[in-house]
Amino acid sequence: MPLYLTESDVNRLLTVPKAIDLLDEAFKAQAAGKAVNVPRSRIPLERGSYNLMSSAWHEKGVVGQKSYTAASGGVGFHVLLYSTRGEGLLAIIEANRMGQIRTGSASGLATKYMARPESSVVAVIGSGYQARTQLEAVAAALPITSARVYSRSEENRVGFANAATTDLELSVSPADSVEAVVDGADVVIVVTNATEPVLLGDNVAKGVHINAAGANSWLKRELDTRAVTAANLIATDDVDQAKFECADLMRAVESGHLMWQQVRPLSDVVGGIIPGREFKDDVTLFESQGVALEDIAVGEWVYRQAVEQGIGTQVGG
Amino acid sequence: MPLYLTESDVNRLLTVPKAIDLLDEAFKAQAAGKAVNVPRSRIPLERGSYNLMSSAWHEKGVVGQKSYTAASGGVGFHVLLYSTRGEGLLAIIEANRMGQIRTGSASGLATKYMARPESSVVAVIGSGYQARTQLEAVAAALPITSARVYSRSEENRVGFANAATTDLELSVSPADSVEAVVDGADVVIVVTNATEPVLLGDNVAKGVHINAAGANSWLKRELDTRAVTAANLIATDDVDQAKFECADLMRAVESGHLMWQQVRPLSDVVGGIIPGREFKDDVTLFESQGVALEDIAVGEWVYRQAVEQGIGTQVGG
Repeated sequence: MPLYLTESDVNRLLTVPKAIDLLDEAFKAQAAGKAVNVPRSRIPLERGSYNLMSSAWHEKGVVGQKSYTAASGGVGFHVLLYSTRGEGLLAIIEANRMGQIRTGSASGLATKYMARPESSVVAVIGSGYQARTQLEAVAAALPITSARVYSRSEENRVGFANAATTDLELSVSPADSVEAVVDGADVVIVVTNATEPVLLGDNVAKGVHINAAGANSWLKRELDTRAVTAANLIATDDVDQAKFECADLMRAVESGHLMWQQVRPLSDVVGGIIPGREFKDDVTLFESQGVALEDIAVGEWVYRQAVEQGIGTQVGG
Repeated sequence: MPLYLTESDVNRLLTVPKAIDLLDEAFKAQAAGKAVNVPRSRIPLERGSYNLMSSAWHEKGVVGQKSYTAASGGVGFHVLLYSTRGEGLLAIIEANRMGQIRTGSASGLATKYMARPESSVVAVIGSGYQARTQLEAVAAALPITSARVYSRSEENRVGFANAATTDLELSVSPADSVEAVVDGADVVIVVTNATEPVLLGDNVAKGVHINAAGANSWLKRELDTRAVTAANLIATDDVDQAKFECADLMRAVESGHLMWQQVRPLSDVVGGIIPGREFKDDVTLFESQGVALEDIAVGEWVYRQAVEQGIGTQVGG
C-alpha cells in the first residue's frame, strides 16, 4: 500500500544540505544516463494553469511525477513515486515545502560547482518565500559570511534581512537598489516575479556567479540579454524545458545573441563533463527551471526515511 | 483535503452504461472546445514502462492525470483530480477497474455513433480481462442479441463464452477461427495482445463496425492495412496519440495507403461535426487509444458521487 506523506512529514525529514547532496547524486546519475527528466507540460485553466512533469532515477528504482495547479501562488503540489521494479505506487507526497527546498538546493548545487570557491558575499534580489531557501542553499554550499537583499518594498527587504539574519546565522542587510545589492557580491541570486529584467548587463561584475531562479514562463524575465551574454558559461537544469519556459535565454537566442548549443545541462557540470568555471574572472549563470528529477531525487530519500522511521500514513486497499 | 478512493469504492459507484453517458458528454465538450486531452508520455523502465497522461474538462471544473507503471499487465493505476478553480487536489482514485470500464465504454460510445443502429450480432476476438467490458459496453449501446468469441486457446474462448452468457444476459458462443467469429457479425471487437494482425482485409464484411481496442504501442498490430483501408470512416479517441502509438494506422500511413487527415477524432463524430456512418454498407473503424479525457470524465463523476454518498477516505493535512 502506498504511503501518504504530508507537508509536516516532509518538513520533519528534509533539510537543505541533505537536498543539495541528493541533487548532486541525481545530476551525476543523469550525466551517466542513469536518470531521465521529462519537461513540464501545462494546461491553461480559467484561473492559472495545471502543471505536470515526470522523471525516472533508474538506479534508485523510482519513477514518478509532480503535479500542481498554479493560480495565485500554487496549490496542491503532489509527487507520486512509483517503483521501476514492478512494485507499483510507493508514495504520495505533499510537495509544496519539498519543492521550495529542492528549488533552493538546485541553486546551491549550481553555485557549488560554478561560483568561485572562496565566494563570501551574496546578493539577493527578491524577498519572497523562495528567496529564503535560495540564500540558505547558497550559504550551505560555500563559505558565505554575509548577504544583502534588495526588493522594491523597503518593508519587505528589511523584514527579509532581519528574519534571515536570525534564521540562517548570517549577517544579512537590506540594500536600496540593484546597484547597491550587487556591489562586491560574489554570488547574485535573482528570484523575483518580474516581467521585465531586473538584473542588467551593467550590474554584472567580473567573476560573479548568478542564479536566476524566479522566472519559469516565457512571459517573465529577470536578466536582460546583456546580462545573459556576459556569462562565459550558462547552465540550466533542463535545456529542453528552458527552450519554452526561460524567457531570459529565449530572448537572447531569438535576438541572435546566443545559441542553444551554448546552454549546457547542469548535469554536464555536476557530472564533470565540463568545468563549472575555468577562470577567476569568468561570469557564470545558472538558469533554474525547476525539474521533476529534483522532485524525484528528494522524494525518494524522504520516502525511504519515512519508511525507516515509521512516518506517514498508508492509504488504499 | 483530498478524497482517496479505492478500487472497491469505484466498483460500487461506476457502471458501464453510466460511463458511456459520461464519455458522450465529455467528447461533446471536447468538440465544443470545453475539454482538452494531452497524449500519453512514457518513460522506459528496467521492467515495462511508466505512463503519464493528462486532461482538463473545463466546464466541469476538473483537470488531472492518470499515471501507472506497466510491467506484466499493469500496476498502480492512479487518477489525480484537481480543481480548475483554485481548490487544489480533489481526489486520488485507484483506477485499474475504472480504466477497464472507460476503455470498454469508449468502444461502446463509438459503436453507438458508428455502427448500424439495428446491429444485433457481435464478434469478439480476444478473451482477456478487457474483452468482457468491451462486449458489455457494445451490448449496452445497441440492441445486441448474441455474440461469438474467438481466441487461440479453446479453453479461454469457452470459458469467456460461458461467463459472459451468465454475466451479461446475452447468448455468447465460442468460435474456432477468425473467419467463423466474424461471419454475419454487425460489430467486431478486436482486443488482443497481438503483435501481428489478427483481423485481415478478407475478414471485413460490408456494413460492419470494428472496434480495435487491444494495441496501444507501435509494436502491436491487430488489423492489417487492407482491413484498415476497408473502412469508409476511421475515428480514434486522440489523433495525436495515435500517431505514435497506433501501429495499425501508422503502418497504413507509412506504407502510403492512408493519410492522417483521414483519421478523425472521436469527438468530431460524437459532437456531430461529421456523421459516424453515411451508408448501410459503409465499414467503420474505431481505433481505441485510451486517453486521459476518458479517465477525467469518469473520475469526476465518481468523485462527486463519493462526496454525495460519503464514500472514501480523506487524506493529508
